Amino acid sequence: MAANPIVMNGWYIGAWADEVGRTLMQRWICGRPVCFYRLSDGSVNAIEDRCPHRRYPLSLGLLDGDVITCNYHGYQIDGSGACVGVAEQPDTPKGAQVHRFPAVERYGIVWIWPGDPEQANPDDIPDVSWLVDENWTHVHGSVGLKARQVLLVENLLDLTHETFLHPSSIGNAAVAATPIDVIGEGNKVSFVRHMIDIEAPPFYKSSMGVTTNIDRWQDGDFYAPGIFILNIRIAPTGTEEPEGFHMKVIYGMTPATETTTHDFFALGRDYKIDDAELSEFQLKQQLAVMKEDVDALEIQELMVATDPGMIESSIRSDVAGIRGRRLLEKMAKAEAAARGEVTARPRPVRPAATPEPAGQA
Amino acid sequence: MAANPIVMNGWYIGAWADEVGRTLMQRWICGRPVCFYRLSDGSVNAIEDRCPHRRYPLSLGLLDGDVITCNYHGYQIDGSGACVGVAEQPDTPKGAQVHRFPAVERYGIVWIWPGDPEQANPDDIPDVSWLVDENWTHVHGSVGLKARQVLLVENLLDLTHETFLHPSSIGNAAVAATPIDVIGEGNKVSFVRHMIDIEAPPFYKSSMGVTTNIDRWQDGDFYAPGIFILNIRIAPTGTEEPEGFHMKVIYGMTPATETTTHDFFALGRDYKIDDAELSEFQLKQQLAVMKEDVDALEIQELMVATDPGMIESSIRSDVAGIRGRRLLEKMAKAEAAARGEVTARPRPVRPAATPEPAGQA
Amino acid sequence: MAANPIVMNGWYIGAWADEVGRTLMQRWICGRPVCFYRLSDGSVNAIEDRCPHRRYPLSLGLLDGDVITCNYHGYQIDGSGACVGVAEQPDTPKGAQVHRFPAVERYGIVWIWPGDPEQANPDDIPDVSWLVDENWTHVHGSVGLKARQVLLVENLLDLTHETFLHPSSIGNAAVAATPIDVIGEGNKVSFVRHMIDIEAPPFYKSSMGVTTNIDRWQDGDFYAPGIFILNIRIAPTGTEEPEGFHMKVIYGMTPATETTTHDFFALGRDYKIDDAELSEFQLKQQLAVMKEDVDALEIQELMVATDPGMIESSIRSDVAGIRGRRLLEKMAKAEAAARGEVTARPRPVRPAATPEPAGQA
Repeated sequence: MAANPIVMNGWYIGAWADEVGRTLMQRWICGRPVCFYRLSDGSVNAIEDRCPHRRYPLSLGLLDGDVITCNYHGYQIDGSGACVGVAEQPDTPKGAQVHRFPAVERYGIVWIWPGDPEQANPDDIPDVSWLVDENWTHVHGSVGLKARQVLLVENLLDLTHETFLHPSSIGNAAVAATPIDVIGEGNKVSFVRHMIDIEAPPFYKSSMGVTTNIDRWQDGDFYAPGIFILNIRIAPTGTEEPEGFHMKVIYGMTPATETTTHDFFALGRDYKIDDAELSEFQLKQQLAVMKEDVDALEIQELMVATDPGMIESSIRSDVAGIRGRRLLEKMAKAEAAARGEVTARPRPVRPAATPEPAGQA
Repeated sequence: MAANPIVMNGWYIGAWADEVGRTLMQRWICGRPVCFYRLSDGSVNAIEDRCPHRRYPLSLGLLDGDVITCNYHGYQIDGSGACVGVAEQPDTPKGAQVHRFPAVERYGIVWIWPGDPEQANPDDIPDVSWLVDENWTHVHGSVGLKARQVLLVENLLDLTHETFLHPSSIGNAAVAATPIDVIGEGNKVSFVRHMIDIEAPPFYKSSMGVTTNIDRWQDGDFYAPGIFILNIRIAPTGTEEPEGFHMKVIYGMTPATETTTHDFFALGRDYKIDDAELSEFQLKQQLAVMKEDVDALEIQELMVATDPGMIESSIRSDVAGIRGRRLLEKMAKAEAAARGEVTARPRPVRPAATPEPAGQA
Repeated sequence: MAANPIVMNGWYIGAWADEVGRTLMQRWICGRPVCFYRLSDGSVNAIEDRCPHRRYPLSLGLLDGDVITCNYHGYQIDGSGACVGVAEQPDTPKGAQVHRFPAVERYGIVWIWPGDPEQANPDDIPDVSWLVDENWTHVHGSVGLKARQVLLVENLLDLTHETFLHPSSIGNAAVAATPIDVIGEGNKVSFVRHMIDIEAPPFYKSSMGVTTNIDRWQDGDFYAPGIFILNIRIAPTGTEEPEGFHMKVIYGMTPATETTTHDFFALGRDYKIDDAELSEFQLKQQLAVMKEDVDALEIQELMVATDPGMIESSIRSDVAGIRGRRLLEKMAKAEAAARGEVTARPRPVRPAATPEPAGQA
């Protein structure tokens, strides 16, 4: 039983589509080694990266057509993960098969379902069609995080941290000072933070040339277990929708192991979409902000790991984060129960000392 | 239950007073992260270095007056460790509080009590007033040790190792050849070793200009759990007290974790107290000697950790060390019992094959 | 109970004879620190490298005649591992003794028996007298491997991997394509692979100047728990024995810890025995091949450690490897039972889906 369980049943970002080609690539997803590549018809494929023979990584093998030949003893594995032959004998070993993960290429993303394939329904993939919308442009990438995934989930579901951790870029006092409305529904947690008539934080001043006060919207949607989408609107105060600058951010928070996480991101905008210099600036800025988060979360991981039983204090701005955390715990518990296991005690959280604000589900 | 329990109830050296100021400093003490700093009135303060909100280190926050603002979400923590406000809401979260450690600044040392505050009595701090006596001068510092604390305790309580580990500085054959008298009383273990009419070891020859045979006294006091004081007298043989050179050494043996230790030291003398060059020499020499100990103890840690059950052979010169070790085991066991835990089996030691010398308590 | 038990009762290679002299050397063998050196009569000696007093490595001490003086507190340990004196008191501590391992110098090898000395019989040391036969010459050395020993055993007992892992040196298609005969008897597993009228692999072309097709024999003998000997014959097809080139390889697969292994090797030949340039080439080539194995096995170790319960698929060419693995498991289990322990569940292996070839014991 894991002390820090990972939710297996869910669509995670496994890779950016432009990372996956005819070169075999190993990436650990939810504690399992995955071999990513494209079949000869161009479709993406993801199989367990352990040869069924002696567990050597298939990603170190040779891809020819749709068949990988393992580089240790030559087992030949087709796109379904089945062994279709060996060099040592004419007959194919029976039942030699590695797991093929449900994988879907959509919106420039390779989505992967690490859990029970029977439950994988591509209709459940969140709509991020703006990534391929011609009226939008975006930058994207990923960073590695040596911290458990839930800490990243909570980081994104409570953006008040921008005020303190990112004051030189996207944070200022208005973020922490503005309450959120939170709506939870099924495997989704949403929050709405509308900051009206505030000073623009440094990043927006420089990237948008804003000089007046602005209205800034931060509307976030967490699709448990691993996707977070942030809808941003920045406009001089008083501007009516749909005028103003719009941005969207997707984070793919994919556990690599119980204590490490892939942090995929894309940052899109609907303005100056042909401005390559701005894109370059935004990518650089985004990576700088994420470095501040990564540094903080890796320290937080150490503090959590060395006192797993500490009861945390919470306030109203934590409502979305706590819901996200509890959702993950609930999902992990249900999966463990379905496997006949008993889950670990959830990370303790002290209920907010004050009543939650009205308007929450 | 820890395999290598740490005694929590005791005054340890947390820092040298000159290390602590208005810049927040994290240091792990007995397995707990501590944030050291000075309040606006100049007094030292030590609080748990985990924000009560999401455990982020407070030492990464901003100190203004007596309040630290956490750099993750802005919890404001006063000198008592209590949250006195947040930026996210007007009302202060109730019950949000981190532990404040009993801390006392005395003799240029910041003393800390990692355990139950109710049992902390500053009167129990050993008298090392020579550190601030105008007739004395001293050098001080600290080194990190990747070994469990008890190995350092035993190292200091059995100075026969000087003969073998430090032959080029403070050791020669006389140390190992001269028996000790040992007295144990309460939480203190003392030994007396008087070497009469012996050759001076290299360090004393060079630092004191001694050319004749000497009398050398090594009188040690271990104040469990973490303080060791050595009283040294060096004098040409036949010189009567109080003539001769006197030196005092304090070691603060403070567990950082179960297998790492802070090794604080100060080396004082009552002669040539204005000789800055001598002070510089003594500091350099002391650090060289301690490096020999650190190297040896880190290797010993590996040998102990890989065979925790080995029964050790002991001789009469081990009497002080064994008493020190047993005292720590007894204290840890009592603390565990008070917490309702069961302690680990103590590290086995074979009784000395020969009777202990007379004159011991 | 170890998850990956080590067989203790067996003659392992502890060192090459030319590694052991009057300088004390520490090497971990089967989870125990061993101090290797030569006594004053030139004979090799191997004792537990933990002082019976406070476990400090004796290998850091001073050897004078046949006595090591520990560098921490001066225990004097003779060649039998017994303490024969201390500097601190006139009487010798009773019962202070470290383990002396049965050790034999033979064929230029220091053989060591890590387990029960009563069971150690030098007659059980495999005959590798070709290492000291004047009609042969050899190169030798060792490499470190961060993988459990059994993975190296299986690597050597299934040479079909040469086809895939070593195609630029000793492997080509013929190796995987040629079935083996396997004979198991007592603590020995042997296989015979005779490749007739095949193209020579690159290594043999270059080192022997072979241009025609060849017959290549690979006859392997695994002497459990830790010795593997390979008998090689290379000759232009049709050449009758005893004509042709003969080579012999010994691998000493000595566990250092449960997950690290010493990989000793010697590569001998009966041709051009005075050709120093060829020896140099063969040593370089051998180390290059072993680097390919080490890299692969260290990756395999990770894949095994992260999914210890995976059931592996097997084929007929695995028969020797599986027998070797089971032999080790059986020996470890018997040793554990003799110690009154329960062993870990063996690493699962799926039976070959097709019947084993005839002719096997």
